[in-house]
Amino acid sequence: MKLNKIVGDRFKERPSDCVIDSHALLVRGGYMKYVANGIFSSYTPLVRVTDKIKKIIREEMDAVDGQEVLFPVVMPATLWQESGRYDSIGSELVRFSDRNDNRLVLGMTHEEAAVHLVREFGQTYAKYPFMIYQIQTKFRDEARPRGGLIRTREFTMKDAYSFHTSQSDLEEYYKRCYDAYNRIFARAGIPEVITVQSDSGIMGGNISHEYMLLTPVGEDTIAICPECGYRANMDAAESIIENIRDKASKKITEVNTPNSTTIEEVAAFLQAPLNKTCKAVVYQKNHSDEYVILFIRGDLEANETKLTNFLHCDIHPAVITEESGITAGFIGPLNLKAKCVTLFDNSLSNTNNMICGANKKDYHLTGFDIERDLGKVIYGDFAKITEGGICPNCKKHSITVSKGIEVGNIFQLGDKYTKAMNMTYLDNEGNAQYPIMGCYGIGVGRLAASVCEASHDAYGPIWPISIAPWEVHICCVRSDTPEVKQFADELYQNLLKKNIEVIYDDRQISAGVMFSDADLIGAPIRVIVSPRNLKENIVEITARDKSFALKTPLTEAEQTVIEKVTELKKEIFDKLK
Amino acid sequence: MKLNKIVGDRFKERPSDCVIDSHALLVRGGYMKYVANGIFSSYTPLVRVTDKIKKIIREEMDAVDGQEVLFPVVMPATLWQESGRYDSIGSELVRFSDRNDNRLVLGMTHEEAAVHLVREFGQTYAKYPFMIYQIQTKFRDEARPRGGLIRTREFTMKDAYSFHTSQSDLEEYYKRCYDAYNRIFARAGIPEVITVQSDSGIMGGNISHEYMLLTPVGEDTIAICPECGYRANMDAAESIIENIRDKASKKITEVNTPNSTTIEEVAAFLQAPLNKTCKAVVYQKNHSDEYVILFIRGDLEANETKLTNFLHCDIHPAVITEESGITAGFIGPLNLKAKCVTLFDNSLSNTNNMICGANKKDYHLTGFDIERDLGKVIYGDFAKITEGGICPNCKKHSITVSKGIEVGNIFQLGDKYTKAMNMTYLDNEGNAQYPIMGCYGIGVGRLAASVCEASHDAYGPIWPISIAPWEVHICCVRSDTPEVKQFADELYQNLLKKNIEVIYDDRQISAGVMFSDADLIGAPIRVIVSPRNLKENIVEITARDKSFALKTPLTEAEQTVIEKVTELKKEIFDKLK
Repeated sequence: MKLNKIVGDRFKERPSDCVIDSHALLVRGGYMKYVANGIFSSYTPLVRVTDKIKKIIREEMDAVDGQEVLFPVVMPATLWQESGRYDSIGSELVRFSDRNDNRLVLGMTHEEAAVHLVREFGQTYAKYPFMIYQIQTKFRDEARPRGGLIRTREFTMKDAYSFHTSQSDLEEYYKRCYDAYNRIFARAGIPEVITVQSDSGIMGGNISHEYMLLTPVGEDTIAICPECGYRANMDAAESIIENIRDKASKKITEVNTPNSTTIEEVAAFLQAPLNKTCKAVVYQKNHSDEYVILFIRGDLEANETKLTNFLHCDIHPAVITEESGITAGFIGPLNLKAKCVTLFDNSLSNTNNMICGANKKDYHLTGFDIERDLGKVIYGDFAKITEGGICPNCKKHSITVSKGIEVGNIFQLGDKYTKAMNMTYLDNEGNAQYPIMGCYGIGVGRLAASVCEASHDAYGPIWPISIAPWEVHICCVRSDTPEVKQFADELYQNLLKKNIEVIYDDRQISAGVMFSDADLIGAPIRVIVSPRNLKENIVEITARDKSFALKTPLTEAEQTVIEKVTELKKEIFDKLK
Repeated sequence: MKLNKIVGDRFKERPSDCVIDSHALLVRGGYMKYVANGIFSSYTPLVRVTDKIKKIIREEMDAVDGQEVLFPVVMPATLWQESGRYDSIGSELVRFSDRNDNRLVLGMTHEEAAVHLVREFGQTYAKYPFMIYQIQTKFRDEARPRGGLIRTREFTMKDAYSFHTSQSDLEEYYKRCYDAYNRIFARAGIPEVITVQSDSGIMGGNISHEYMLLTPVGEDTIAICPECGYRANMDAAESIIENIRDKASKKITEVNTPNSTTIEEVAAFLQAPLNKTCKAVVYQKNHSDEYVILFIRGDLEANETKLTNFLHCDIHPAVITEESGITAGFIGPLNLKAKCVTLFDNSLSNTNNMICGANKKDYHLTGFDIERDLGKVIYGDFAKITEGGICPNCKKHSITVSKGIEVGNIFQLGDKYTKAMNMTYLDNEGNAQYPIMGCYGIGVGRLAASVCEASHDAYGPIWPISIAPWEVHICCVRSDTPEVKQFADELYQNLLKKNIEVIYDDRQISAGVMFSDADLIGAPIRVIVSPRNLKENIVEITARDKSFALKTPLTEAEQTVIEKVTELKKEIFDKLK
């Protein structure tokens, strides 16, 4: 394709609304355009990238016996009522009515549609196992879309659903998908993606993994143990706290702590370490506004996902009213009058000589001994694991915390959906059973942006050849020079004939602008044809990632480009082994 | 692929809710499943068919310099307010609110999104012309989805938008797209598709064509003149009426017509031909419920599209209330007291001695002379053209009327959208101009169903090889016979190695069930391996369309299949020339 034909503008300035590099570069490079919050249109270069990603995904899904199907974007509410999710999912599920007042939803995931599609087919054990997948547009009304294509409201996703007659069969298949996913990310150019144990959240089921690209701009937090290889999403990583009791418990004493409303202020005022304090974190349930107070050691942070899973409902940070009976800034477990759900993190178990709120303005208690003063309470794991914390696997103080982008996930769903939607099969003894499901997702646009995030410089994306919009970029510098133009034209045509994907820039513009555009388009191989090069009887063939820079005789130019394309493609597959 | 692995059931009985054959066969063959009114899921065989259609479309769109882009399914209402269509389109446009009460719509077409995407890019004449297209899910809340995939609410569509600096440039490009569309339909296996002039409806613009597959089950009506080649959608075909006045006009006379409320009853009662009557057809405007009364010759039918275009608003058949002042069954143009819009079809111009309603229960008038009795009124073309009617082109009484399915359409839009959305470019003299647009649509699922409608028998679809889910179907009859199984297995593997798309049935079932399934899957070439054939040292290689039936020696089986695949593919392309 000729570059002067590409619809879309490329420009130099970083757009002010782009926080992360991949977003800025994909906007600057004419890949995407903002339409509304979390909604974008794609230009041809991005369509070419995502088409290649889809092709890789299809090949790997077909290789694990997947069958491509297509579910609707718009589904009847009745289908989601069958699973119970019409009511249990919050406002990220878009609900609306059609012209006949039938309630509909926009698909944000398709477990219900998958069960619906195979409910009759899967009535006998002989049909199992099977896996169906689709690549389809989804819409999730995210509260906070961010990072360009990293978290959008509308997105293209590959979602797969497998059906099994036993947990062991699911696990065997799960392992195949696990490997297929690693192949997909490696083929897309990010073999460095790691798997972490994840929280299953609204999907149901227990065992699940996320595929994470570690990057400081990621919005997921991951606990990694370099000692034993344990890796988990913060939401799924158990926080283990070894509490050491002081030998003697002091007397409980009310102390005046004027104007000290945060636990840090209180600790500083009373000259105590944070881990000798007990702080309160207050939420409200989304559906009822009921208050939920979590008591947790002052040096730790609450993990909302763990709370949500425990409560089986969504929560939000509380708005504390006067009528609530809650004394904001001075909340403590003793003499708490407010009507609320009270939870205690494991970090408070067995503690003494703690500082906590006195439920009275400007007062805290010291010498709080939770078991002596409160009696038996039930503790739970509601804290975030911390850097240097205890590894849930090897128990060493070895946890490191990193940020990552979730580029894919796989879940063992169990029979949550088949049971709720009454899908059964007859086993080989003629008994009705619920099939066991797995599900497997990859966001196509997010994967494209993640590769860009993992592989770029200040000037543009550095696309791996497997998903680059074009493989080769020919820059014809001074195309007003007939010999230069003629050589570049011929090279372009000859490479096209050899099925090389070429973008050809023969505009009469400065070499600077030409190279800037080439950087933004990010083809892995660049060929520079110029009067100076021609005088030396060479072309320059360089790698976008700077791994090579050749001066190749004109007569060998075509062959060298073809060899380099082949070589780069082979490198991708070599990393799979 | 092995047939016993395909997810989805095939069955014999025609589903009672399927009116047309393609719908029944696609359900019976395990291609699609009903999810909600006008909403379906697709199984793998249909995904394979539509993927091939998409590939053909992409190749032909790229060949006319199209660039594939992707617009969102969900768009902000503001975008549609810019064009004015947020208010002008009726309830087929789905509108809803997101979590922040922003109004959104589901894309049913993407002119607004197209202008939005290129508004900055297209600011100077040097960038023109260009064409962008997408293949994307759309949703249109149809009042009456029907015919399976023929008219759905959710559908996958290729929609293309071209931008030009002059009408002549648009026309030149329009011609290229016109030809590209003919190639697409021919390559998809229905070269018999014809183009007809169409009504532009809500799309704006003037010149447009529809591509029609003529079939009695089509929902569009087409006027064709075999004499001169004129072809138009009924909605766009001018109805020309030659009225002949009786020599003398009789006196106007009120006659008692008890219980005669339809024009047929009145004509029969008064023993007059229908073309000597003037009937009233009553509508109401959708937005205001204002009455619209059309007077038209009794033997003709009103065309609602022509009325809608004239009135610039949607209408529906009227509910006549007592307060309206309309005397249902006896409405006439004289002494009409009701407050309403009154329109006259050309068919009444210059008529005399007509029968019309007297606006009085149980009475009609005879001897009505429209010009004598009513004075000057304005006439318009509001009637449907009729079989044997006058051709608007060659003026012969030669019109034939056929039914068809609209498989694609192309429109010259003019500057309707660019003007409304203020997209301008600077021409070569530095003046701001509005670009001129064309748009070009094909419904992918409807095309698949249309090919099935055009090419099937009672037992299943007869897919053209270009879009068949598989090219070759191997039936291994009596797969419990080791030699049979071994030969069939090897043939299957060898054909796969040669990149032939094979579906392989090695189930231990009766030949009857096996052949029924093969008919439903509709692969163009069938290979039957059986004990009896093996005894004769042959396989049977037959065409689904019965065009050949070979008994081929075992040693030549593979080669013959490959040759037949090549031959059938070549036949498709031969029809392009």
